[in-house]
Amino acid sequence: RDHASLIVHGADRPGIVAAVTAVLSGHGANIVSLDQYSDNPEGGAFFQRTVFSVPDLTLRLPEIEESLSERVAGGFGLDFALRDLSVPKRVAIFASKSDHCLLDLLWRQKHGELAVTIPMVISNHPDVAEEVRSFGVPFFYVPSAGPDKSAAEAEHLRLLAGNVDFVVLARYMQILSAEFIERAGVPIINIHHSFLPAFIGAGPYAKAKERGVKLVGATAHYVTEDLDEGPIIEQDVVRVSHGDTAADLQRRGADVERAVLSRAVRWHSEDRVIRHGKHTIVFA
Amino acid sequence: RDHASLIVHGADRPGIVAAVTAVLSGHGANIVSLDQYSDNPEGGAFFQRTVFSVPDLTLRLPEIEESLSERVAGGFGLDFALRDLSVPKRVAIFASKSDHCLLDLLWRQKHGELAVTIPMVISNHPDVAEEVRSFGVPFFYVPSAGPDKSAAEAEHLRLLAGNVDFVVLARYMQILSAEFIERAGVPIINIHHSFLPAFIGAGPYAKAKERGVKLVGATAHYVTEDLDEGPIIEQDVVRVSHGDTAADLQRRGADVERAVLSRAVRWHSEDRVIRHGKHTIVFA
Amino acid sequence: RDHASLIVHGADRPGIVAAVTAVLSGHGANIVSLDQYSDNPEGGAFFQRTVFSVPDLTLRLPEIEESLSERVAGGFGLDFALRDLSVPKRVAIFASKSDHCLLDLLWRQKHGELAVTIPMVISNHPDVAEEVRSFGVPFFYVPSAGPDKSAAEAEHLRLLAGNVDFVVLARYMQILSAEFIERAGVPIINIHHSFLPAFIGAGPYAKAKERGVKLVGATAHYVTEDLDEGPIIEQDVVRVSHGDTAADLQRRGADVERAVLSRAVRWHSEDRVIRHGKHTIVFA
Amino acid sequence: RDHASLIVHGADRPGIVAAVTAVLSGHGANIVSLDQYSDNPEGGAFFQRTVFSVPDLTLRLPEIEESLSERVAGGFGLDFALRDLSVPKRVAIFASKSDHCLLDLLWRQKHGELAVTIPMVISNHPDVAEEVRSFGVPFFYVPSAGPDKSAAEAEHLRLLAGNVDFVVLARYMQILSAEFIERAGVPIINIHHSFLPAFIGAGPYAKAKERGVKLVGATAHYVTEDLDEGPIIEQDVVRVSHGDTAADLQRRGADVERAVLSRAVRWHSEDRVIRHGKHTIVFA
Repeated sequence: RDHASLIVHGADRPGIVAAVTAVLSGHGANIVSLDQYSDNPEGGAFFQRTVFSVPDLTLRLPEIEESLSERVAGGFGLDFALRDLSVPKRVAIFASKSDHCLLDLLWRQKHGELAVTIPMVISNHPDVAEEVRSFGVPFFYVPSAGPDKSAAEAEHLRLLAGNVDFVVLARYMQILSAEFIERAGVPIINIHHSFLPAFIGAGPYAKAKERGVKLVGATAHYVTEDLDEGPIIEQDVVRVSHGDTAADLQRRGADVERAVLSRAVRWHSEDRVIRHGKHTIVFA
Repeated sequence: RDHASLIVHGADRPGIVAAVTAVLSGHGANIVSLDQYSDNPEGGAFFQRTVFSVPDLTLRLPEIEESLSERVAGGFGLDFALRDLSVPKRVAIFASKSDHCLLDLLWRQKHGELAVTIPMVISNHPDVAEEVRSFGVPFFYVPSAGPDKSAAEAEHLRLLAGNVDFVVLARYMQILSAEFIERAGVPIINIHHSFLPAFIGAGPYAKAKERGVKLVGATAHYVTEDLDEGPIIEQDVVRVSHGDTAADLQRRGADVERAVLSRAVRWHSEDRVIRHGKHTIVFA
Repeated sequence: RDHASLIVHGADRPGIVAAVTAVLSGHGANIVSLDQYSDNPEGGAFFQRTVFSVPDLTLRLPEIEESLSERVAGGFGLDFALRDLSVPKRVAIFASKSDHCLLDLLWRQKHGELAVTIPMVISNHPDVAEEVRSFGVPFFYVPSAGPDKSAAEAEHLRLLAGNVDFVVLARYMQILSAEFIERAGVPIINIHHSFLPAFIGAGPYAKAKERGVKLVGATAHYVTEDLDEGPIIEQDVVRVSHGDTAADLQRRGADVERAVLSRAVRWHSEDRVIRHGKHTIVFA
Repeated sequence: RDHASLIVHGADRPGIVAAVTAVLSGHGANIVSLDQYSDNPEGGAFFQRTVFSVPDLTLRLPEIEESLSERVAGGFGLDFALRDLSVPKRVAIFASKSDHCLLDLLWRQKHGELAVTIPMVISNHPDVAEEVRSFGVPFFYVPSAGPDKSAAEAEHLRLLAGNVDFVVLARYMQILSAEFIERAGVPIINIHHSFLPAFIGAGPYAKAKERGVKLVGATAHYVTEDLDEGPIIEQDVVRVSHGDTAADLQRRGADVERAVLSRAVRWHSEDRVIRHGKHTIVFA
């Protein structure tokens, strides 16, 4: 309790760290951790994640925010985001039939490994309903067959509206429309079952088997309009051999998928990931 | 000494292993290791690598070969290849300016980690001449500037003719013509500085930086007419972060390149790799 | 269906592979995979795992067994074990309060990744009862407080008798007596939460934090009278840093524990692990 | 050029980061990177590594040092160390007969991967003399047979005196006396050929083979009076199998040794490693 995260992001200039830490120090805050990165000290972009503690955080946040607005946003022209870490982010999970990623997230949340609440799981199949509800999490079945996804997406938007801080696609086998992505208005994290940019699109394990690769992987990324092109948050791979069938690749890959997605969700939920154009800065 | 490898390869049928081992047993051979794989027990392809020892191997090989011709090639319609393992394969290494892969191979050969002889290193730059010769290995400088590679390739073919069992491209920065590949007549192993099929073509580290991947890798593969499309022998990756520059990726990737290439060369030199269409079977 | 595994194990001599495969071939069997290893071609121990298919396997097994008894056991003095792979092994899982390893096994069994049946889960705590039963698996609560474990172990033996082919200790926090191990009469696999032989005994994550190691790991091994000294089946590690608390090490280690244990259980259930003195031969 | 590193280390208190960055900012310095860690925000130890640039660094360092003395050392009671990063650290490498770690360090230094100078290599065997000198590095042969190491160590101290900033034992097969360690007066980094604390002492690969482990590793650590007990800087492992002989473990382990040692040397040379009791803080 009484811990907050502060993300500062913008054009690099000398003196930013000193200014930010002076503001915090001036409010009696104690810095618990500080990560900083500049992609180019000469005219590049600046990124800073600071976790600090201060007594009576809830009461003090407005005045800290005001000081930051004045001296960091105003003085340096930087963006900043301040968040009380005792308030977990709310995440909606979208799933289809397979449950390995979904279960991993539900289990880790239940065991306190993910600082999130899960107000809902949405699926285009009813298969995982019982499993989800056994965790005490509401399950909503929203069919999405056929080419026209507008009715399903409208239902998704009604369910999400005001209820979530981000969305995770845990092997959700439907493509989201650009309109949905925009109207959802929150970050959306997807797990792709290949080591992107290899095997973009559908059927990556079959493609991997066809190409004869010796490793298969998974990629967690933010969803953008361009399918499989969003900023990458995390990736990992596992060794396979000629003896593995496409089904074996899928089974081995599934272990990587759930590990990679869970790390990405944890980092996002702790404000460790900063999006910057097509890239991410990850203070893991 | 007195160890031989036997590769058997062809259409799968019941009884192959029994027939092969009966032939060997009939000649008094002792099986040291046996690896076997079938990509589909119903009408698929069969692959077997056997290492055996037999007293007076050199004297006995012709008669073993004759029995195999009769009972394995004739009886089952399989291809086989028999080789005295005390005779190291001869490899020519092609390099350009960078020496990390080259040096790793030279060092491992010198320390007995690679069962090969290296009759020559060929380069389109003179930079590594002294280093190569300090290992007692002949160095040939064959310039290859300009679009027309025919003179250089003709010189390469003269140097290689009859002298080598395979060729390794140790970060050789020239593309080989289809004619050269065919006329060389021996397997050619290349190291590509990315986790293929990601980042095909030139400049993979710059592309990796641009895409924001969290792992970079390397791929050793047999060279075919289709650039970067040959059968993959080995791959590996290393973790990178947003903080790594393209130069950092190159440095970290170089460690993976040399490790991957050295493993591929070792496996090839010990007959552990069987090519099959666009794939490899690796009995590592 | 119609697949069987055959393990052959004993003193190495020339001609074993040929004799075994000739027996199988003579019965019309088709070899699906064959792995062979000798720890010393001169007077060492020989190990072979063969998977074969034969029509009407159930009917044919007795006659194949008879031939093997005669020609492999009798002729070469080797031990062998023949098993119909369509009959899954039966495993009892022992657990305590933590469920990460237990759940991973239950989930993989349910999804067809482990070719076992799970007739029972036994625990000295009631905490995981509901979770276990949601998988349709019987749960038995056998309290085991206090120094005298004899009543609990007697109950364990009553439950196991005739019902299981092996036992898995999925973070079961009680030490088994030598008498229990002997009377159980089946292999017992344990997961130790460190990279053995580092941090033998209790509290390995606290010890790892104290020592300042940069990797933590887990070890699956067969249980013997000597605690933490049994033959190792599988091990793995994960990177940690100075910033990880002992609780972080435990959380990260838990992911490795479940992965390592699941691999060990899968390999054991598929007859891929052969015990040999203090070692294992793993044909993975 | 014009980059300096600043390490701050001591008892944690609120306001340290702000004070340090205010000092730097006050001198017109631009922070290039900042890493900070506290092992316990309530009364724990504080660690900060800052890299900054300032025009005319050489001229400005004395006044920056004076400000830090006053406000950081005086005001907060912290230790600090300030260093011009354009001045590479000087390292003496001790080796014996094996050259894999030695060569890796020499090669990386030559290629600009290690920001050090290597004024000397010292060995108790003459074997690697020529190889070392081919890199333009002086080689000193100091025999050290027999139980009495005092003459050899006296010679070592004469060679080192005033010439080096740290020492690396690159598979140097002699134990250093406590007196030598003290009198050398500089940090000493050793590579141990096991995943410590497993297989402490001599012959770790033979012990690993005997125990039947499935991974072998290496550990880079600072040398203290207690053999193999010094603070660990870096560790890594590689997978091995039942089929690997003790010689194979040694060969595979050698690749890990050189990788681990080179990382440790790089991090130490860039002031990324802070010793704290029996532990290290590594800002890699």
